[in-house]
Amino acid sequence: MTDLPPPLLSDVVTASSSRRAFLGKASRLGIALPIAGALAGCQRGDEPNRGDTVAAQQGRDPLIQNPNSRLDTAHDVRAHTTSTAEGAATGMQPIAYRRWDPVLPPASSNRTHRLAWSATEVPIHITPEVVVAAWTFESDVPGPTVRCRVGDTVEFTLTNRGKIPHSMDFHAAQIDPKASFRSVVPGESVSFTFQPKYAGAFKYHCGSAPVLMHIGSGMYGAIIVDPPAPLASAKEFVLVQSEYYLTPPSSGVQAFDYGKMLSTMPDYVAFNGRPSQYIAEPIRVKVGDRVRLYVISAGPTHPCHFHVVGEQFDRVYLGAPPEVPIRGVQTFTVPAGGGMVFELVCDIPGEFPFVNHGFGHGQKGAIGFLVVE
Amino acid sequence: MTDLPPPLLSDVVTASSSRRAFLGKASRLGIALPIAGALAGCQRGDEPNRGDTVAAQQGRDPLIQNPNSRLDTAHDVRAHTTSTAEGAATGMQPIAYRRWDPVLPPASSNRTHRLAWSATEVPIHITPEVVVAAWTFESDVPGPTVRCRVGDTVEFTLTNRGKIPHSMDFHAAQIDPKASFRSVVPGESVSFTFQPKYAGAFKYHCGSAPVLMHIGSGMYGAIIVDPPAPLASAKEFVLVQSEYYLTPPSSGVQAFDYGKMLSTMPDYVAFNGRPSQYIAEPIRVKVGDRVRLYVISAGPTHPCHFHVVGEQFDRVYLGAPPEVPIRGVQTFTVPAGGGMVFELVCDIPGEFPFVNHGFGHGQKGAIGFLVVE
Amino acid sequence: MTDLPPPLLSDVVTASSSRRAFLGKASRLGIALPIAGALAGCQRGDEPNRGDTVAAQQGRDPLIQNPNSRLDTAHDVRAHTTSTAEGAATGMQPIAYRRWDPVLPPASSNRTHRLAWSATEVPIHITPEVVVAAWTFESDVPGPTVRCRVGDTVEFTLTNRGKIPHSMDFHAAQIDPKASFRSVVPGESVSFTFQPKYAGAFKYHCGSAPVLMHIGSGMYGAIIVDPPAPLASAKEFVLVQSEYYLTPPSSGVQAFDYGKMLSTMPDYVAFNGRPSQYIAEPIRVKVGDRVRLYVISAGPTHPCHFHVVGEQFDRVYLGAPPEVPIRGVQTFTVPAGGGMVFELVCDIPGEFPFVNHGFGHGQKGAIGFLVVE
Repeated sequence: MTDLPPPLLSDVVTASSSRRAFLGKASRLGIALPIAGALAGCQRGDEPNRGDTVAAQQGRDPLIQNPNSRLDTAHDVRAHTTSTAEGAATGMQPIAYRRWDPVLPPASSNRTHRLAWSATEVPIHITPEVVVAAWTFESDVPGPTVRCRVGDTVEFTLTNRGKIPHSMDFHAAQIDPKASFRSVVPGESVSFTFQPKYAGAFKYHCGSAPVLMHIGSGMYGAIIVDPPAPLASAKEFVLVQSEYYLTPPSSGVQAFDYGKMLSTMPDYVAFNGRPSQYIAEPIRVKVGDRVRLYVISAGPTHPCHFHVVGEQFDRVYLGAPPEVPIRGVQTFTVPAGGGMVFELVCDIPGEFPFVNHGFGHGQKGAIGFLVVE
Repeated sequence: MTDLPPPLLSDVVTASSSRRAFLGKASRLGIALPIAGALAGCQRGDEPNRGDTVAAQQGRDPLIQNPNSRLDTAHDVRAHTTSTAEGAATGMQPIAYRRWDPVLPPASSNRTHRLAWSATEVPIHITPEVVVAAWTFESDVPGPTVRCRVGDTVEFTLTNRGKIPHSMDFHAAQIDPKASFRSVVPGESVSFTFQPKYAGAFKYHCGSAPVLMHIGSGMYGAIIVDPPAPLASAKEFVLVQSEYYLTPPSSGVQAFDYGKMLSTMPDYVAFNGRPSQYIAEPIRVKVGDRVRLYVISAGPTHPCHFHVVGEQFDRVYLGAPPEVPIRGVQTFTVPAGGGMVFELVCDIPGEFPFVNHGFGHGQKGAIGFLVVE
Repeated sequence: MTDLPPPLLSDVVTASSSRRAFLGKASRLGIALPIAGALAGCQRGDEPNRGDTVAAQQGRDPLIQNPNSRLDTAHDVRAHTTSTAEGAATGMQPIAYRRWDPVLPPASSNRTHRLAWSATEVPIHITPEVVVAAWTFESDVPGPTVRCRVGDTVEFTLTNRGKIPHSMDFHAAQIDPKASFRSVVPGESVSFTFQPKYAGAFKYHCGSAPVLMHIGSGMYGAIIVDPPAPLASAKEFVLVQSEYYLTPPSSGVQAFDYGKMLSTMPDYVAFNGRPSQYIAEPIRVKVGDRVRLYVISAGPTHPCHFHVVGEQFDRVYLGAPPEVPIRGVQTFTVPAGGGMVFELVCDIPGEFPFVNHGFGHGQKGAIGFLVVE
């Protein structure tokens, strides 16, 4: 491609403190960093969603980024639009800080669920002080929690009301990703229908390239699928763990830093998008309650070594409940991009921290209180 | 809090080669590094355990750090006492190098277990050459192994004979952490009683803030809980994997480095506190023995991809034994902050290395020999 | 050993951008880096496989590196031969790029399997552009896939046709590693026989010290063991995930970088040795097929959070099949140095990406397409 030897990915990641230097090197990299060209396009402003020369060369419409939702790779994707503090999700009024309600929505008696969501870029307060230039589903991080049952029909439409291409990948769907999880450009929509086949705690996320950047910037959430016969009655909550990799603030807003994402050393790790939010505003249950926690590791990279201080899990479902839980568990690892269901019986009152017990990451905000009253 | 933009956590971690620079930045960070203020207090010497302005502002006794054992977070804890080469655990005669006996203590016929332990800071030889300024339970790393049975009563008292606050968190206890796992200041004690409900290999550790620092500095160990009906007769051993993140030596002693802990790149990884100790002094069993290994990943951050070279596990209990083991396993991942029980049948003689097969970390000392004679 | 304070391992890893500086520091390190002395020997050229002063002091033949296959550790191994761009696997014609066939070889009716393999160093195209100075079994990365059945007899001989010591460690063997997995010097051979006791997807690899380097340089592969009664009929494939840590190119070849391996930040992550190879040349099956994927995390360090976009696994065998699979799984973590069996039923046509869903690593090439036609 070029006479210069390509820089190594890790050189780019470790040597570049500034985003500009990072992207300068990345533009020579090609092979590993599918971000540079389109970013330049994005910065031009007059054609923010174009500039995919690879697509053009292949005879694809350069307006349609990643039209078949091929996840980004190190080798075949060279130019995609992304967002930065200078790009999308800035210059807007940030969404105020609020506690993200972890309560699982009640099961509906409807067997068909119609969802019409928007993808947008919007600044959000993830703490009272910290504002991030988030990419979102329905203007929140995580996006809304979907609840349905095995065999239900989910009719989903995503409309892109943002500035760059986005898409939707439901881990609970058995569906052709090439068609249904395809990226849509701003102003357009994609619709698909699926029937969840298995129960469990599933992740959803934007799969547009580079998927590391789209997940890392906030586009994920939970779809909880109930088994055909209900599980035992319980207080049910959703906890989506994710990581934040941020640039320094510009005009009070911190953008997402792709180079840092590749370093896998996050600035914050959070349950439900806001570091340590359930310290000040805990999750509350009553003595005697069975508590069911649907825990998802949204990543983009790290698993969650999930633990509740002062308790053990009566059961952890590694696969679809109600089949073969393991029992009497202090900690179990939820894979990156995976989900598991944790149950405990709250026999005694107290204030029980729930944590990612891999504390080098977990201490950056993946902690909250379960208060049993 | 300040007019300066807060540095990013990863900037602090990656950019600071010196601890002083790290703490200088950390003092501006507030949000992410709960270490700076109290360390200054610690260095004053005349009031080594005070200096919690946040506690004072909240009307709490500034002498009582972390009084309710709230685990450290990125957001609500700003000043805690910690230790360094210049602080605790230095200026004392180091404890000599010795092999840490991995044999599980025999089961007691007592149904009540009374434990009165001390928390202390003391330098320890983790190799014949390397001395670390450890924080300990009972002057050892790991602390003593507790063995009991489901339903037994454990009466535990921790007396702080060190210079900074400490606490005890047993993963086998169902108990209110706010009361029982609270931090105690030097000279004071905390007592609590619990009855383990599940069998297995459980971790214990100091949970005082910042918990990453207290675990990372040596305050962990194993509590093994037998099921009501004994498991098959076996030779039983305890292996607690942990990581060391160290400063350069000062007067021959290496302190623990909180910035490195956040980098998640350890200097050493060890079973039972001493890197590679069971190379020179292996674990020995006889041909025909069933060997049961209680493997705990104390972290503070990394799981253990546990493997025995030349063998497969007859069974691995992911949850409480004896329920539903998986069988015929080459390697399984023990979560950070978790424990699992591994069994193999030693049919043939030989010298079998046991390792963390994630060798980028494991090769730093998480290796030993199981010799079958 | 020396009056200079030993540098810390992480200092060496993070501060040294050049290999020379890295090794210069490493030579003072002793305790942590068993590579420097022998490398010097290797560079002398006239005695490329000698120089083990520790071995000499211990009365062992200095020609026989690691004679008992003791895996490298941080403490007892100080000098081993290794390879670099200047050493082994350079100056030869690189092996051309080709897709690595992931199809599991058919089961043989033979109950004895005789394998005579070579260990060699040889440059290989892992992409059309990237050539690495690989260390190999049978001149490929991964090495050939072995298929056998529980109770079969595998008669294996490894002949070292390379320049440095190598060995073979089959995770499916119950055998004394000290004898059978021992290192052999160039020109010599080692033979051993084993009978796999458990079914599953097992890793094999070179265990010569430093094992991190030998695995990291390409010496791994899969041995698939069928259960006594065949599993359900399926289209079967092998996916071996591994990481590449590379130096900048020299004469068009990139060598493996031990310092980077210790940093655990890979340049590429790949299934079957070639980053993203199954994007351009997918794995193809038919609608209605049951697909069985034998997934191995060769590492050297990272697990694989294995996921198929648009699908869920009908069953995942955490241990030996056919016992107790978990079902209805979106993602499960294959341990570093471990293997698991994933099954899905391809009810619908489409193009389904399979990925390591820990995208900070996975996006570096651990991705491919499963096309259902």
